Amino acid sequence: MSWTETLAMETLQKERENPAFDVHAMSVAHHGSEEALAFKKRVMLELERDPTFFNDDFYDLTKDELRERTIIKMHSILNWFTTESLDDFQARLAVISVADPGFWTRFGVHLGLFSNAVRSGATSGQFAYWMSKGMLSVRNFYGCFGMTELAHGSNVAGLETTATLDENTDEFVIHTPNLGATKWWIGGAAHSATHCAVFAQLIVKGKRYGTKTFIVPLRDPETYRLLPGVTIGDIGKKMGRDGIDNGYIQFSYVRIPRAYMLMRYSQVTRDGQVFEPPLQQLTYGALLQGRTLMMNDSGNIGKKALTIAVRYAAVRRQFKSDPKNQYETQLLDYPIHQRRLMPLLAQSVAFGFTSQELIRMLAATNQALDALEPGDPKLEQTLELLKSTHATSAGLKAFCTWATLSAIETCRQACGGHGYSSYVGLAPLYNDFAVHCTWEGDNTILALQSGRALISAYQESKNGKTQGEALDYLNRLDEVLNAKCASLDELHSLQGIENGLITATAYFVKLAAEEYDEYMNKGMTREQAFEQCSQIRFVAASVHTALFIFRQFRHAVEKLPESDNGVKKTLQTLCEFYGLWQIEEKAALVLRSGWLSSEQFDHVSRRVTELCAETRKFAIPLIDSFEYSDFVINSPFGRYDGNVYQEYFNMIRRNNPPLKPHPYFERLIKPLIQRPVPEVEDLDEAIGLDEEIDEIQAERREAEQQSKK
Amino acid sequence: MSWTETLAMETLQKERENPAFDVHAMSVAHHGSEEALAFKKRVMLELERDPTFFNDDFYDLTKDELRERTIIKMHSILNWFTTESLDDFQARLAVISVADPGFWTRFGVHLGLFSNAVRSGATSGQFAYWMSKGMLSVRNFYGCFGMTELAHGSNVAGLETTATLDENTDEFVIHTPNLGATKWWIGGAAHSATHCAVFAQLIVKGKRYGTKTFIVPLRDPETYRLLPGVTIGDIGKKMGRDGIDNGYIQFSYVRIPRAYMLMRYSQVTRDGQVFEPPLQQLTYGALLQGRTLMMNDSGNIGKKALTIAVRYAAVRRQFKSDPKNQYETQLLDYPIHQRRLMPLLAQSVAFGFTSQELIRMLAATNQALDALEPGDPKLEQTLELLKSTHATSAGLKAFCTWATLSAIETCRQACGGHGYSSYVGLAPLYNDFAVHCTWEGDNTILALQSGRALISAYQESKNGKTQGEALDYLNRLDEVLNAKCASLDELHSLQGIENGLITATAYFVKLAAEEYDEYMNKGMTREQAFEQCSQIRFVAASVHTALFIFRQFRHAVEKLPESDNGVKKTLQTLCEFYGLWQIEEKAALVLRSGWLSSEQFDHVSRRVTELCAETRKFAIPLIDSFEYSDFVINSPFGRYDGNVYQEYFNMIRRNNPPLKPHPYFERLIKPLIQRPVPEVEDLDEAIGLDEEIDEIQAERREAEQQSKK
Repeated sequence: MSWTETLAMETLQKERENPAFDVHAMSVAHHGSEEALAFKKRVMLELERDPTFFNDDFYDLTKDELRERTIIKMHSILNWFTTESLDDFQARLAVISVADPGFWTRFGVHLGLFSNAVRSGATSGQFAYWMSKGMLSVRNFYGCFGMTELAHGSNVAGLETTATLDENTDEFVIHTPNLGATKWWIGGAAHSATHCAVFAQLIVKGKRYGTKTFIVPLRDPETYRLLPGVTIGDIGKKMGRDGIDNGYIQFSYVRIPRAYMLMRYSQVTRDGQVFEPPLQQLTYGALLQGRTLMMNDSGNIGKKALTIAVRYAAVRRQFKSDPKNQYETQLLDYPIHQRRLMPLLAQSVAFGFTSQELIRMLAATNQALDALEPGDPKLEQTLELLKSTHATSAGLKAFCTWATLSAIETCRQACGGHGYSSYVGLAPLYNDFAVHCTWEGDNTILALQSGRALISAYQESKNGKTQGEALDYLNRLDEVLNAKCASLDELHSLQGIENGLITATAYFVKLAAEEYDEYMNKGMTREQAFEQCSQIRFVAASVHTALFIFRQFRHAVEKLPESDNGVKKTLQTLCEFYGLWQIEEKAALVLRSGWLSSEQFDHVSRRVTELCAETRKFAIPLIDSFEYSDFVINSPFGRYDGNVYQEYFNMIRRNNPPLKPHPYFERLIKPLIQRPVPEVEDLDEAIGLDEEIDEIQAERREAEQQSKK
Repeated sequence: MSWTETLAMETLQKERENPAFDVHAMSVAHHGSEEALAFKKRVMLELERDPTFFNDDFYDLTKDELRERTIIKMHSILNWFTTESLDDFQARLAVISVADPGFWTRFGVHLGLFSNAVRSGATSGQFAYWMSKGMLSVRNFYGCFGMTELAHGSNVAGLETTATLDENTDEFVIHTPNLGATKWWIGGAAHSATHCAVFAQLIVKGKRYGTKTFIVPLRDPETYRLLPGVTIGDIGKKMGRDGIDNGYIQFSYVRIPRAYMLMRYSQVTRDGQVFEPPLQQLTYGALLQGRTLMMNDSGNIGKKALTIAVRYAAVRRQFKSDPKNQYETQLLDYPIHQRRLMPLLAQSVAFGFTSQELIRMLAATNQALDALEPGDPKLEQTLELLKSTHATSAGLKAFCTWATLSAIETCRQACGGHGYSSYVGLAPLYNDFAVHCTWEGDNTILALQSGRALISAYQESKNGKTQGEALDYLNRLDEVLNAKCASLDELHSLQGIENGLITATAYFVKLAAEEYDEYMNKGMTREQAFEQCSQIRFVAASVHTALFIFRQFRHAVEKLPESDNGVKKTLQTLCEFYGLWQIEEKAALVLRSGWLSSEQFDHVSRRVTELCAETRKFAIPLIDSFEYSDFVINSPFGRYDGNVYQEYFNMIRRNNPPLKPHPYFERLIKPLIQRPVPEVEDLDEAIGLDEEIDEIQAERREAEQQSKK
């Protein structure tokens, strides 16, 4: 082992000396409890020992090979799925998502999308029926989720697939009327699914009732032959997550029993009566889970990316700031490198705590929804809760997945040229993660939904309605709009930072609402007015979401017990860091709101730079406290022991064995490089064409002369 | 053809009615001349007809297959390379880079890196020698560029490979002393190169003279067997550009003749005397070309991405803003979608004009360098020119490649879920382009170099030295620092926007220089002080670069002839748009500088939104004027005819033929889905263990009792 490697490992070890906090206690804080941390470690160990999850050799696999690998892993996972509590299994999937995003998706479409659709949309008899068919044991049954079409994604109400009741046979006829109505992107459709939860326009007696969900069998589970009228194709290569077999589906007059329509909310009777749900909103609960998962994944994947980039930055040395120094400077000691990575470290911790809170909100909302009975006096209250969870989760999903995608790319670039290597792990991570910004609600649309909710809340508030916790600043609007940062001390306190974000949020929510009113006063429809003010609505949502995250982080930190283990103190620093950095990132908005003065802005920037340097001091112990095993990180740059160069080299040699003979020298390179020099023929000599032309012309002239004579 | 497709094509055609400008004349403006435009069209036609550049079926190729494809294309390109003028060939490569980035790189390392290194570093005798060896005819010769090492990239002076003169044999011994010194990322090394331009530490008589360049033969061109002492391995899978065979190289005491060191600047004599160049700076000229290419590529690739996203946005419809409308709304009509794409459209046009200017600057600089003779009185002037071109090109390369990478991702997300499909083309484009942010100078480091030059210029200016055109604002510093936006009219004029960017730039350059002084006064070394103020240095470079781009764009527009073809007027609008959008993007800086007031900031935002809407009106004709053929765009979404859905569907079916039988049902899915239900054995009944335990215990008790008795 040469000095490069020894130094690398020693350097990382040294970073762990005298940590600012008890690393285990910090880890417990990130994970919520000792039990949650212990369970995660158990899952990581089980994954690492499971031969089907072997992850050292997939880089050159084709899409087809990757998909086979994914199916092989399914055997293992079904064991846990059928024996573990749902909460434990969800926690297991959250770890798997970090280790193997492609697999997570393939199983997720059955469990998260299909089964959830049935769970939330079926009557209890229907649910029992699909259970008996093997839905949850995954026996002769595999579900996929048929919502998106080629020409319709976000506009679910505009889907064009039809489900027409045939009263003669008591069946629905499922049909794809045109190319644009082809079901598209359907995960698991290409090769895995036996059944599909199809979103289609319900048509009864010639009347359309909007989009409902129908369970449509696709394949014979015995032979996997497609059923009559079902056309399925492979959708092919994607940016990432090639382990999942997305497909397209076209239905040509496919008949299913009437009972295969999910009827918890809407019902169709034997004689063609249609009952619509009294409250359409109650059907939206199913959307919340995906957003919560994505928020959770944002925190976790951010931590994975940072584990790679920060450990590498500690080990990598480049340039000597002083020629007398023995070694070159660690990247982590460069202020600009701290500026690139440290705020993202604070962000990933903030996302982690916010995610814990969102999971709690989701559980409370689902509990309230499940407890609801017909004529329940709590209906109003539950709808409010649902609305609020909706708006909050929409904003969080959008801005946190965007922020994390961008963080992955920053981490990748912070690894310099090596970040472009697949083996370092950040390039595939980017490609896998990118889809989070689009599926389960396009981020731009979700952000605008969140902004719309803010405008509505503002209007309600103007009309005297008191707002809940997340929007409490609207209850004291005049006060917060006129607030100014009183001193640098205020800027250094968590309360002060919160004040700043509140004033900026309130300012832009008000501005958005006023712009909306302006358009309404010009005679636009509500929809048009909302569209016209979309830019400012988007801005309002972005700063509101930052405020929400900061508050969750602050709340989580402040309720930690006082202790001398350094955890609370460190997290307070990170919380200040995240908040001030957000103020700097959104400085134009905070300046505009009047809360911050130009001179104070200079101070914010300087303080953020200081906090980068402070965080750098405990960056490695903080990364350690994220507790991802080398197996899950799967990057030579993110190794716990810091043996970056040797392991990177070994990994590349394992994947590209040096003994392989030259693959195409004889066939392709030799004919190129040893091609003959083209002989330049002297055509004039060979043919003597010009002389011949002269002769021909001379003859012609002569003939002409002759004829003239 | 169903109505979805018909409507799509009609919609795009309709966007072309009554264009705001003469599309051909606009196209000429983007390309600089009729001739340049005609040549580009010719190249696109030749590429499209060249069977080796067939580009409909590469999505599922492995890295190894892609590399073979790339070599096959080399045959065609060599024809042009050896028959065309260098300028024409460079223009051809610029088009190829848009059509096929991976191929461009593979040829680029030989032509752009290796040959350029020889051209700029060799004496004329050495150059003639390597020419005679086949360097430029690519006969029995293929070069690669051996600069980067595993442990050293940006710090070229810190490279560890050694070249030690053996005076006994008049040879250099090239050696890799440790793992970190392994040459890494070397494009073409894995399978293509016969020779390498190796950067190594020159050691003569035990003394180190820094990094010089040596031509080291790697393989026997007859057999492609590695030469003794040369170890080469494949570096494997990357984020993108898998058509190029990057490799690592280790040298173990490899001997080359002394004459294989490039000696235009430094010389080593037969008896071991070393002469160093009088002006180290003159050797930096070689770095400029890569940056210029990347700036050019930024404009072009941005236009490619926008061609896809904007044409799709015109065709794609989603939601009805009014239920009475016949069709859903075009994405391009949504203000928020305009906000996502229209500023990027203005940006790509701005980058295009700036690139034309940078190419002119490079040519002038190279001409001045080539004309330089020993003792030339123009030396000082030429060095100034070189320095300025350096600083400018560094900032442009960094900020324009970043902006373009981010633009590609925005375009990709603007295509919704379909953006995640490889066939739409934006995902591979992102993966291919991403490396531009790192190679040929890591962007962060280049940005900081640009910032460093700004601080130096500020200091020179303080000392009374007049600055050149790009930095002329330093010559009237007090005036520009105190300038304020006088009126909304000023904000609407190109001069006004330039004033705003100038004041903001001057403000942050001054702040950076002052922060630097502050650290110097604290007793830091120059290097330390520069590091400590890196954040503000970076900010100064970012706003200076935006100003530079805006000025090039403005200058190019203003020198266009007055005409009624609408070209100049439209470009003026785009120039205003780009400038105001930059002011909005950097609003915190412009506000901080005092040029803009908070109320004016609101106006800027509103005006940018208006300009988005104005630009939307001519977006499709503008895209048309970029003049990329369907073949080069290679995306069903970017098609000229708008037949998006049908062609997307066809493309996916061609690449994933529906007749393929299920690839792994019997082997993998059947055992999973038809696995037997585990029998739960009643162990109590089968073994009766608990009863046996009772019996054993009873016996023991009895025995105990017996023994007590």
